[in-house]
Amino acid sequence: MIKAIIFDLDNTLVDFMLMKRAAIDAAIYAMIDAGWDMSFDETKAFINKIYDAEGIEYQQVFDKMLKEVLGRVDYKIISAGIVAYRTAREAALKPYPRVFPTLIELIKMGLKLAVVSDAPSKEAWLRLSYLNFHHLFDVVITYDETRERKPSPVPFNMALKELNLKADECLMIGDWAERDMVGAKAVGMKTVFARYGDTFNTLNPDSDYDINSISELVDIIKKENSE
Amino acid sequence: MIKAIIFDLDNTLVDFMLMKRAAIDAAIYAMIDAGWDMSFDETKAFINKIYDAEGIEYQQVFDKMLKEVLGRVDYKIISAGIVAYRTAREAALKPYPRVFPTLIELIKMGLKLAVVSDAPSKEAWLRLSYLNFHHLFDVVITYDETRERKPSPVPFNMALKELNLKADECLMIGDWAERDMVGAKAVGMKTVFARYGDTFNTLNPDSDYDINSISELVDIIKKENSE
Repeated sequence: MIKAIIFDLDNTLVDFMLMKRAAIDAAIYAMIDAGWDMSFDETKAFINKIYDAEGIEYQQVFDKMLKEVLGRVDYKIISAGIVAYRTAREAALKPYPRVFPTLIELIKMGLKLAVVSDAPSKEAWLRLSYLNFHHLFDVVITYDETRERKPSPVPFNMALKELNLKADECLMIGDWAERDMVGAKAVGMKTVFARYGDTFNTLNPDSDYDINSISELVDIIKKENSE
Repeated sequence: MIKAIIFDLDNTLVDFMLMKRAAIDAAIYAMIDAGWDMSFDETKAFINKIYDAEGIEYQQVFDKMLKEVLGRVDYKIISAGIVAYRTAREAALKPYPRVFPTLIELIKMGLKLAVVSDAPSKEAWLRLSYLNFHHLFDVVITYDETRERKPSPVPFNMALKELNLKADECLMIGDWAERDMVGAKAVGMKTVFARYGDTFNTLNPDSDYDINSISELVDIIKKENSE
């Protein structure tokens, strides 16, 4: 009997890469508009290099670029970039289609909902709050709680403990086969691959289910719980 | 001959106190909604106490409050507060009536425009960018450039140097008599008191002019330059 669904956050509930791309693109245009003397493509490559080195959640990416190129932070340029970044991020930070109604339907079916994310606590919670999702989840586990990343069993086991459930009572859904599917399966959970959020062209995620819309979860739960 | 106008930023171009109040009020409601267990009025008093101690530009006010009351930062609560703060701030961060058309008219009259603000560079420039004012000013001097606050002559003299003008060619407008009017007069500028932004009920600002709308600047310049 499935009693809880555990969701990955980025690229499962929210299209993180779309949001990031929209925010960065808007920031580059605004910085060029404010006097930044580098082409759009060069700037984008520079920023991606910093993200590759520091991680995609790195918050000082424009500061670092300006310091490296200009030797200092030009506040006119960086402020234009930050304001455009924030505005575009807020506009683009949306759940995938059918995410909100599906979460509500799952709650009405009596299921508990959890998030297990490798993102830092502050960034994960800010995204949940921007989405107005912060009231929907019974349990939220982020990187800061465990200092272990999926597929480590530690975050999955912490979620189970906080949910007060056993692994076979939970179903994990995520877009990253090697982290979400492998990790959840190893602790004994059923797994659902979020094909719609897959950015790696994963051929075989080795999951119990493979879905193109989050709304398919409803029938999966009905099936699982009727067996 | 007046060739440049130097503006204070907060409470002269933008209604800073209105923006701050709107942002804090929205944040408190959102934090209570997310589980913060303190009344609105108590929370507001707590936050004001932190601002009194750390300065109104202090960026960690919610972190500090949560740590003091809960012994830790609850990310669900703080994220709800931050998101509400940012959204309300962006909505409330508006120039006073007639500021934008007046700035454009002054530019068309051939005047240079500058800002001399005691705010930190990053916060001042973010506000200018949110207002889309970052292209209008020829010179922007903030606290970080001089590490001296008005009425010190240092920021005024730096603005004059960057404008390449003499003091009697410049007119200073601001809402704070003891800082903006006293400081500008001491270096030899004409002064305009922004009565509409006055938060101290100043009786006698000892300025050359005293205005209720920024649009009065146009006639003041015409008068000064016809004498």
